[in-house]
Amino acid sequence: MRTLRGRLDLCALNTATLGYQCAIEQTIEAVARAGFGAIAPWRRELEDRDAARIGQRIRDAGLKVSGYCRSTYLPAATRERFLANIEDNRRALDQAAALGAACFVMVVGGLPEGSRDLGAARRQVQEGTALLLEYARGAGVALALEPLHPMYAADRSCLNTLAQALDLCEALEPADAARTPMLGVALDVYHCWWDPELPMQIARAGRARRLLAYHVCDWLVPTRDLLLDRGMMGDGVIDLAGIRHQMEQAGYGGAVEVEIFSGDNWWKRPVNEILAVCGERLQSSC
Amino acid sequence: MRTLRGRLDLCALNTATLGYQCAIEQTIEAVARAGFGAIAPWRRELEDRDAARIGQRIRDAGLKVSGYCRSTYLPAATRERFLANIEDNRRALDQAAALGAACFVMVVGGLPEGSRDLGAARRQVQEGTALLLEYARGAGVALALEPLHPMYAADRSCLNTLAQALDLCEALEPADAARTPMLGVALDVYHCWWDPELPMQIARAGRARRLLAYHVCDWLVPTRDLLLDRGMMGDGVIDLAGIRHQMEQAGYGGAVEVEIFSGDNWWKRPVNEILAVCGERLQSSC
Repeated sequence: MRTLRGRLDLCALNTATLGYQCAIEQTIEAVARAGFGAIAPWRRELEDRDAARIGQRIRDAGLKVSGYCRSTYLPAATRERFLANIEDNRRALDQAAALGAACFVMVVGGLPEGSRDLGAARRQVQEGTALLLEYARGAGVALALEPLHPMYAADRSCLNTLAQALDLCEALEPADAARTPMLGVALDVYHCWWDPELPMQIARAGRARRLLAYHVCDWLVPTRDLLLDRGMMGDGVIDLAGIRHQMEQAGYGGAVEVEIFSGDNWWKRPVNEILAVCGERLQSSC
Repeated sequence: MRTLRGRLDLCALNTATLGYQCAIEQTIEAVARAGFGAIAPWRRELEDRDAARIGQRIRDAGLKVSGYCRSTYLPAATRERFLANIEDNRRALDQAAALGAACFVMVVGGLPEGSRDLGAARRQVQEGTALLLEYARGAGVALALEPLHPMYAADRSCLNTLAQALDLCEALEPADAARTPMLGVALDVYHCWWDPELPMQIARAGRARRLLAYHVCDWLVPTRDLLLDRGMMGDGVIDLAGIRHQMEQAGYGGAVEVEIFSGDNWWKRPVNEILAVCGERLQSSC
C-alpha cells in the first residue's frame, strides 16, 4: 500500500469539505498551498465561471482535477423532465471536459416526487446513464457512478451498493480488453463501509478497471444527521486503512479524496484549519 | 395475496409502537380490544413479571405472540463479556418459550466499543448465533435474525442485508427437508426496502422456509432521526403492498406486524389513537 505520509500530492480535496466558504479561485489557492495534489470542485462553484479558465487556474496552481461533482438526478415523474435532466448532465459533462476532470461523479437520484417505485427509478437510471455514456465518450470524460448509502435511497440515490453499480456498468459497457472503460465507480467509504460484499466487489471493480475515484471521511457514532454529520478521518469507526489497502490491491492508483459534509462542526471552522486537519489525518488515519 | 381488510386478526402489534406508555397488562388489553390477532412484547416490559403468566394473559385475551424482542447484542470487546451476552440471551429465550412466542427476534449488535473491525464483529455474531441455536432448539423457540438497515452497522447490527442473514442461516443450519428450520429471518421493510436484491432474497428465504416474521412501518422523506423517525404505513415511500406480495408469494403466512419508533410523533399520542391508526393503515396501505 502507498504511504500517504509526506505525500499529500497523492491526495485530493473535495471542495464540499470546506462548506463553500469562499469562491473557487480562493479555494484553489488554499488547497494548493496546503499541499494537496488535486481538487474536486462542485458545479455550484462554477456558475458564472468559464470552466476552461478555472481548469487552467487549477493546473497553474499545480493541481489536478480528481473529479467533478456531480450529476443532476436522473429519475423524474415525466419524460420531459427526465430528458431535461439528461440535457443538464450533458452541459455538466462539457464543463468536466473543460476542467480536465478525471471523471464526472454521478449521484443518480432517488424516487421521483410521489413515487414508491424503486424499480422504475432504477430503470430510469439505467436509461439515463446509457444516454450520458454516449455523450461522455464524445467529451472524453469518464462517468463515475457513486453508490450512495442506502439511507439515501429515497431522495438522493437509488444506486446503493457497489455490486449494483458494477452490474450497471457491465450492462451498459460490457468488458472489452481493447479499450479503457468510460463507465466506472466512485467509491466513498461513507456509503460502502458497512457492505459485507465490499472486499469482493472492490476486487471485481479493479479487475474491470472501473475504480475511478476513492473518497474518504468517517462514520461517527452517534451520527446525528443523515446528511450533514460526516466525520473527519480517524474520528469514527471506518477501517480506512483496510479499505484503502483493498482499493490499491485492486489496482487503484488515483487520488485519496477527502469529502466531508459537516454542518455543525467542520463547516463552521476556517478553511485553513479544515485543510490542515484533513492533511494531517490523511497522513495518520487513512 | 391475502386481504387485510377486516382481517386485523392476521396482524400483530409490536409494543414498541406504543412508546411503552403503559404496563404490559394494559397494553395486552388495548391491543386485543383494537382487534389485532397477535402482539410482540419487549423484554423491558417483562422485567419483574412472570413470563408464563404474561403468556397466559395474552392467550386469554385471544392473542398470539408473533415474536419476542429482542436479543442482547452479541459482539463484545472481551471474551467474558461475549459469553455474558450469550447467557443473557439464553435467559431471554427461556422467557420467549414461556410466553409461547413464535420466534425470538435477534438484533445482533454492531462494533464493540473502540473497534473498527466489522469482520471480527460478524465472526462473533456467527459464533454467538451458533451457541444460541443449540439452546433455542432445546427451548423450542425459533431464532429470527433481523438484518438492520446499514445505517445501524456501527452501533446496533452488523447484520445488514437479507442475503447476509440467509448466508448465516445456511452456514449454521444447512438445509434439511426432514426438519423445520429453527433459524430464520425477521424481515422489516424499514431495514430492507432499498435492497436491489430484496425480491430475489425473499424468494430464497421462502424456499428455505426461513421467513419467520414480517414487520411494517414506512420510510419518511425527509427522515429526521436515524432511530426514532419511522413513519406510519402510508406516510412514506415504501412499496408495502409490493413487498408483502413478495413475502406471501414466497410462502409467508405469519402475522403482518407493525413496529414504529417515532419519538416526536406517534409515541406522543394516546395508545388508543395509535392502535386505531395502525389498524386502519394495515387495511388500507399494506
